Order: sequence, then C-alpha cells, then structure tokens
Amino acid sequence: MNRDAETRAVVLLSGGLDSATVLAMAVAAGYSCYCLSVDYGQRHAGELSAAKRVADALGATQHRVVAIDLRQFGGSALTDSDIAVPAAGGSGIPVTYVPARNTIMLSLALGWAELLAADSIHIGVNAVDYSGYPDCRPQFIEQFQRLAAVATKATTSGASVTIQAPLINWTKAEIIQRGMLLGIDYGLTTSCYDPDAAGHACNRCDACALRRQGFIDAAVSDPTLYRTR
Amino acid sequence: MNRDAETRAVVLLSGGLDSATVLAMAVAAGYSCYCLSVDYGQRHAGELSAAKRVADALGATQHRVVAIDLRQFGGSALTDSDIAVPAAGGSGIPVTYVPARNTIMLSLALGWAELLAADSIHIGVNAVDYSGYPDCRPQFIEQFQRLAAVATKATTSGASVTIQAPLINWTKAEIIQRGMLLGIDYGLTTSCYDPDAAGHACNRCDACALRRQGFIDAAVSDPTLYRTR
Repeated sequence: MNRDAETRAVVLLSGGLDSATVLAMAVAAGYSCYCLSVDYGQRHAGELSAAKRVADALGATQHRVVAIDLRQFGGSALTDSDIAVPAAGGSGIPVTYVPARNTIMLSLALGWAELLAADSIHIGVNAVDYSGYPDCRPQFIEQFQRLAAVATKATTSGASVTIQAPLINWTKAEIIQRGMLLGIDYGLTTSCYDPDAAGHACNRCDACALRRQGFIDAAVSDPTLYRTR
Repeated sequence: MNRDAETRAVVLLSGGLDSATVLAMAVAAGYSCYCLSVDYGQRHAGELSAAKRVADALGATQHRVVAIDLRQFGGSALTDSDIAVPAAGGSGIPVTYVPARNTIMLSLALGWAELLAADSIHIGVNAVDYSGYPDCRPQFIEQFQRLAAVATKATTSGASVTIQAPLINWTKAEIIQRGMLLGIDYGLTTSCYDPDAAGHACNRCDACALRRQGFIDAAVSDPTLYRTR
C-alpha cells in the first residue's frame, strides 16, 4: 500500500466487537476508513449508535448509515418482533439468522467502494466462535470476491476491490486480544441481540454467550453491562 | 417444475420493457411470481408506478417495493441530480451506470427468495442491446449464481435458488416480439431515464434509443408517449 497517498477502505461496521476490531486493524494499517452501517430494522438498533461511537473513537474518516427495511421480509428474530430471540446453545442455524444479510451489506459496500475508488472492503465475519450463519463462512467470502471482480465498472478497466475478512479464522479470544493491543475500548461496542431499553445486554442470547466466553478465554476484563435479573 | 404445487419465483421488476417480458414469461411457465422493485432514489421514479401496473396486469402474486436510498452515494446520473442524463451514442459505460445496482437488487431478491422458499430469481438483464453496464453481462450473472449457492441457510441443507436471466442474449426486437406473443401491453412500461413531469419519454437518452430501435426492428407499433419539442 502506498502510504503517501490516501488509500481508502470501506469498513462494514455493526457496532459489535468484531467489526470494531477490523476497523482498528484497518486504521493501523494506514487506510482511510469509510465506515458503513446498515439500518435494516434490527431489533437491537442500539448497535447503530454503538457503530457511531466506535467510528468516532477509532478514527474513521467517514461513517454512513444506509437504511433498508428488511422487516417487510421478516423471517428472523432480529427483524420480526413476533419471533423471540432464543437462548444460546440450540442446534442448527438459529432464528437470529437474517436471510442474505451479509450479501446485501457487501453489495452496498461494493457500490460505495466503487464510488470512492477504495481498494478494499473489510468485514468482521468469523467462522470459529459464531452462530453458524452461512454468510460468515470462508466459501461465501471467496465467492463474493469473485463476484466483485466482475460486478463493477472499475473491473472492466482492470481495477478491482478485494474483500478482506481478517478475523475469519480467529477465535473470539484472539480477536479481543488483538483489539486490546490496538487500544480498543470494547465498552463502546454492543453484541447483544436483545438488550433492554437501557442498553443492558441480556446475558442469554448466542451473541452474549460468545462475547462473554471470549473475554474469559482472552483473560481480559469484560466491560459489558449485563442486565440484572 | 411441479405444476400441482405452487412454485415460487422472485421477479425483479423495474417498470421497463425487459423485466415486464421476464415476468410474463415466468407467469406463462406456471410460476407464482413475487415481484420486487427497488426504490433507490432514482430520477425516473415513475418506473415504480409502472412496475405496479405491470405486476397487476400480468398476474403477479405479490409486488413489493423496497426502499434504499442510493442517492447518498451519488455518482450516477440516475441518483445524483447534479449529473445530467446524457444523449444516446457516447462511448464507454455511460454516467447512467449506478454502481453495484444489480448486485444490490439481486441480494435483496436472494433474501426474499430464501424466505419464500422460491426456486428461482428472474432478472431482465440483457447484454446485446444494452448500455454496457458490467452487471448486465453473462459473467456477472454466472458469478452471482455461484454466490447464491453458498450464501443462504437453504443452501446448507442442499436447496438452492437459480438465477434466471432469459433475455441475456436476445436483441431488443426479439424481446419485444416474445412479449407481444405473450400479450404484453408495452404501453404500461417505461424505459426513459429522464421523463418529463407528465411521464413522457425524452426520446434522447440511451434507454429511449434502445427501446425505440427495438420496436422498429421488431416491426411492432411503438406505444411510447414521447415528449414533443
């Protein structure tokens, strides 16, 4: 990367722990980071304010929120208020899966990346300590990379954007440890699918379970504010 | 296809001539058609009412409009009012190209298709009489098919959705002739990128030029209402 000129990256930022780490890594690598969050009607919309806090704290160049209402499709506990968020530990892909969510988010990132002439799109997907979502797996990212190579005007003149998923093979503990080295305040982030009105995490859903265990395994103090019951 | 049970298709419907033809073909093939239009802040938003007319007239099972404002990215004559729609006949990919538009639309269709358990997504892209947009080419559709095969929960259990682009190698005249055989009233459709307030076509942009020539080549009377100057 040429560090004299501005090299741009689009970073998908959810407000969670993983994407915050990806942003910090991209900033540390010298990228000008253009962060994109998607307001898709998620139950846990507090993650959008978390995304803004994270973008500000970690030195993003820009942060944009694109609204697209996936509630009209429904079918997920995250977008349909009639479907409850399940406790962690079930089998199979949980009902918190949102159909095609990462395909949609990467598509939006691809459009913005082309307009910015960004050299890469950074996404915090992880296929180790994760909920089994199909669009977090390496084969999904590889196929999106191949799609991006033929999808845009830039590619017709030889330019191309790379999809970077640096966390894909890391454990949650490794992600947290890398973030601590980069000085991230994980208290700014939120992972819970079902926080209360005050933003306190439920300590019950899959996202809470993965996050909590990550801090334990990393031997790092967990800054998460959990609901008291 | 099992004609006893309902076999569902998601049909991307723009309000233009090509996607109307695709819908008529899918209905004729026996599909229950779930039509999806995207309100992306396009200059020619009249195409959304055209899409509704077309869906009603051709017997769609459902028609939904998803809003996503691509104007905040800008960079296209179709989404940025500061960029004029050019006359037909320039060289290269024209400024009417909207970055990643078909990737975004197919992603949304993919999400809905999964929820509907649809067997296919139908899109009216064409790489013969077209404006050179990269995301209308066969290699783009082929890659999206490969992405779809790993992107959803359904694919993890062996189901998959196919991407059907039946017009991709047809001339505009061939498309119109097929549509006439299927009884389409093309007067319901609109193609112009820059219609006036009354919805009259400019008879000047690339989309008008391709459409007009298509009716001439097909030897079919052109129902388009053009602006008088």
